[in-house]
Amino acid sequence: MVHGRVSRLSVHDVRFPTSLGGHGSDAMHTDPDYSAAYVVLETDAEDGLKGYGITFTLGRGTEVVVCAVNALAPHVLNKDLGDIVGDFRGFYRQLTSDGQLRWIFYRLQTTGEELNLQIGPEKGVVHLATAAVLNAVWDLWAKQEGKPLWKLLVDMDPRTLVSCIDFRYITDVLTEEEACEILRQSQVGKKEREEQMLAHGYPAYTTSCAWLGYPDATLKQLCSEALKDGWTRFKVKVGADLQDDIRRCRLVRNMIGPEKTLMMDANQRWDVPEAVEWMTKLAEFKPLWIEEPTSPDDILGHAAISKALAPLGIGVATGEQCHNRVIFKQLLQAKALKFLQIDSCRLGSVNENLSVLLMAKKFEIPVCPHAGGVGLCELVQHLIIFDFISVSASLQDRMCEYVDHLHEHFKYPVLIREAAYLPPKDAGYSTEMKEDSVKRHRYPDGEVWKKLLSAQGN
Amino acid sequence: MVHGRVSRLSVHDVRFPTSLGGHGSDAMHTDPDYSAAYVVLETDAEDGLKGYGITFTLGRGTEVVVCAVNALAPHVLNKDLGDIVGDFRGFYRQLTSDGQLRWIFYRLQTTGEELNLQIGPEKGVVHLATAAVLNAVWDLWAKQEGKPLWKLLVDMDPRTLVSCIDFRYITDVLTEEEACEILRQSQVGKKEREEQMLAHGYPAYTTSCAWLGYPDATLKQLCSEALKDGWTRFKVKVGADLQDDIRRCRLVRNMIGPEKTLMMDANQRWDVPEAVEWMTKLAEFKPLWIEEPTSPDDILGHAAISKALAPLGIGVATGEQCHNRVIFKQLLQAKALKFLQIDSCRLGSVNENLSVLLMAKKFEIPVCPHAGGVGLCELVQHLIIFDFISVSASLQDRMCEYVDHLHEHFKYPVLIREAAYLPPKDAGYSTEMKEDSVKRHRYPDGEVWKKLLSAQGN
Repeated sequence: MVHGRVSRLSVHDVRFPTSLGGHGSDAMHTDPDYSAAYVVLETDAEDGLKGYGITFTLGRGTEVVVCAVNALAPHVLNKDLGDIVGDFRGFYRQLTSDGQLRWIFYRLQTTGEELNLQIGPEKGVVHLATAAVLNAVWDLWAKQEGKPLWKLLVDMDPRTLVSCIDFRYITDVLTEEEACEILRQSQVGKKEREEQMLAHGYPAYTTSCAWLGYPDATLKQLCSEALKDGWTRFKVKVGADLQDDIRRCRLVRNMIGPEKTLMMDANQRWDVPEAVEWMTKLAEFKPLWIEEPTSPDDILGHAAISKALAPLGIGVATGEQCHNRVIFKQLLQAKALKFLQIDSCRLGSVNENLSVLLMAKKFEIPVCPHAGGVGLCELVQHLIIFDFISVSASLQDRMCEYVDHLHEHFKYPVLIREAAYLPPKDAGYSTEMKEDSVKRHRYPDGEVWKKLLSAQGN
Repeated sequence: MVHGRVSRLSVHDVRFPTSLGGHGSDAMHTDPDYSAAYVVLETDAEDGLKGYGITFTLGRGTEVVVCAVNALAPHVLNKDLGDIVGDFRGFYRQLTSDGQLRWIFYRLQTTGEELNLQIGPEKGVVHLATAAVLNAVWDLWAKQEGKPLWKLLVDMDPRTLVSCIDFRYITDVLTEEEACEILRQSQVGKKEREEQMLAHGYPAYTTSCAWLGYPDATLKQLCSEALKDGWTRFKVKVGADLQDDIRRCRLVRNMIGPEKTLMMDANQRWDVPEAVEWMTKLAEFKPLWIEEPTSPDDILGHAAISKALAPLGIGVATGEQCHNRVIFKQLLQAKALKFLQIDSCRLGSVNENLSVLLMAKKFEIPVCPHAGGVGLCELVQHLIIFDFISVSASLQDRMCEYVDHLHEHFKYPVLIREAAYLPPKDAGYSTEMKEDSVKRHRYPDGEVWKKLLSAQGN
């Protein structure tokens, strides 16, 4: 049973100098340093267990998220962990509704003014900070239960699971009762699905082959290597130059053959009309989906693109940048996407992701998580494995993104076998980084950065 | 002509201890300290003029916005002001697309990973910081031109005006050419409308009468005072308790009579079905609009509420929390609102507000700005006066919110006469605060806070 009072919350600005690969970014983007705001929760419990939480950032800006985590800290410190997870919905609401951080409903008798203000809420920096803090709480909870997070969720009774979800603003499509009913119905065959996961893992796809601006030779080499490694699903980046896209998509499609799956990702490059026009010209290469064709805020835009591309057999995929459940609710209502891509660090941790998984199930839209960056693979594998065992009960049109990057800094790195995520066996949320990695990469005082900054004469 | 190189950007955490009114906030909200991240831009020009920009916050959290402003500073420092406003669209895009702060489109040859990450973008803390910085740029530009901001905009030729707007993600509803055409068509009668504004001002409504939880006596007293002062439009806060709302709305409607305008504001209290049900019961009091019935992110939710309430003659008003032009675009596309409420500090300054004013004109939706807080009245009056003279050319169903609060801290406070905003005559954006107010209220080292914090034994 969970226990202990939160005695300490520390947050670290951890940055990996990935921008020093020497390979410049393109004209519209500068070099990123893959980074994380890394939260450590300690309690006064004798077990000495700690909870680790991250949210993913890109160098500059991490300090802003760290600043937001510190602003949220008072909500967590000295709280009893049992009280937190015992009323997890209430605690989530408290974090996301921080009076001063989020919004106010207040009377100044002096002026009679009542005010509603948000620096979030449930979006941007404050929501990323919320994710980091709550990811640490979930990691600690799972560790105290001695289970990997996916198993903690799988073993949880439906009523307890939904008690972690804030249904505010989504009851018009999903009520608590409906959520419970979905979970109850999925009890059938759970055991078999868990065994299936343990035996074969969750299908993954690779995003490491066909990057914009790769020379064709590199592209060919990476493709054939990936094919050798058993990958059957490939994502190609598009959107910079149409002729270049056509050449590269043809090359990849020829390499992988007509049977394997090809996906395309535009990273929000287009306006709505441009997206339709562009993808119409790439349709001949039979992409399963076009990912992020336009602004992540543009629900109706995604719906228009979906409608226009459906006759061509191309689905729209989006979600990695969608900032909360209200956006996902609308994407589903508007039939704006055919593949839903959750992100473990952008939504409000497991709590908000649960509500999105359940809404996706209700609308029968497959969830294909976003991963990569720092730790996103480690975290999101838990969510999608739980989704299969306890919610979707299907692998149809489903797969989880995989990028082979920075796993060496994690204490419990992902395990990929035959293009599939093998379920983590260690207790927790796989969020814990190696102490030495954190120490060396802390910005700006970690050894790695001290060297770099002094070299730069800073 | 604008000139000078930005030699210094300083940002201050300015907080007014409004939470010490001794009047508690309600159960779901804590006490706010009306605050601002206050930006000061200096150049190397001999005129010695400074640009002042603010974004509105509520105490805790201001330091997060300050942190974000500092992260944006490198984009502004040492830039030539002429270059900034000469390619204002490009500069806006640069700020909102900061490689590391906003999103990345980057190749790591080591892994081939390409990454797209946002801690904003164009939303939350980072966008508030963008507003503060750009508000300062506009203030400085207007000061150098020796005009109040509204006049600078009114006198600007259409082509230059639209060159300040980033049309990215809105070209499916408004292109640069359409925007120019709207502005050209509104040239007719401009001079007369400017004279009309100078003579009579822009109509305002008061949000200072009917607050949740006011005793009926207070409510009556404030109403009759407002009536005496010539106010004809009144907003009532609703959403906490239906019976209480019914009693208070009846009281106010009886006081102001059937002819005057009554509006209601729920401050996001409801889910969609609840909003429709609740407002149906308040319809008898003939509200012109229901403001913020649900989540500001819920475009389709607002559309559903609009559709359900239209037969009752109640329009939906929203916008003060809408985080960028893409949300406004969709609210207009979805017929989700009947009154559009811009905010001078939530959108990306004048630049983004211009695009929203033009979209509203195209959809023939009246703009009724949100104001209050710290400086919001001072800023937004410029935008709405420009809107009347150069864009909407109409006062039909239009009015600007007014709250009588904290104006004494501003060097150029709003001037209200007969329930109307009189156009500012001083050069600039009315963003400049009194030096002494800033000094005394700087957090935590200002005199006011030193006293308070030591009193609290901190």
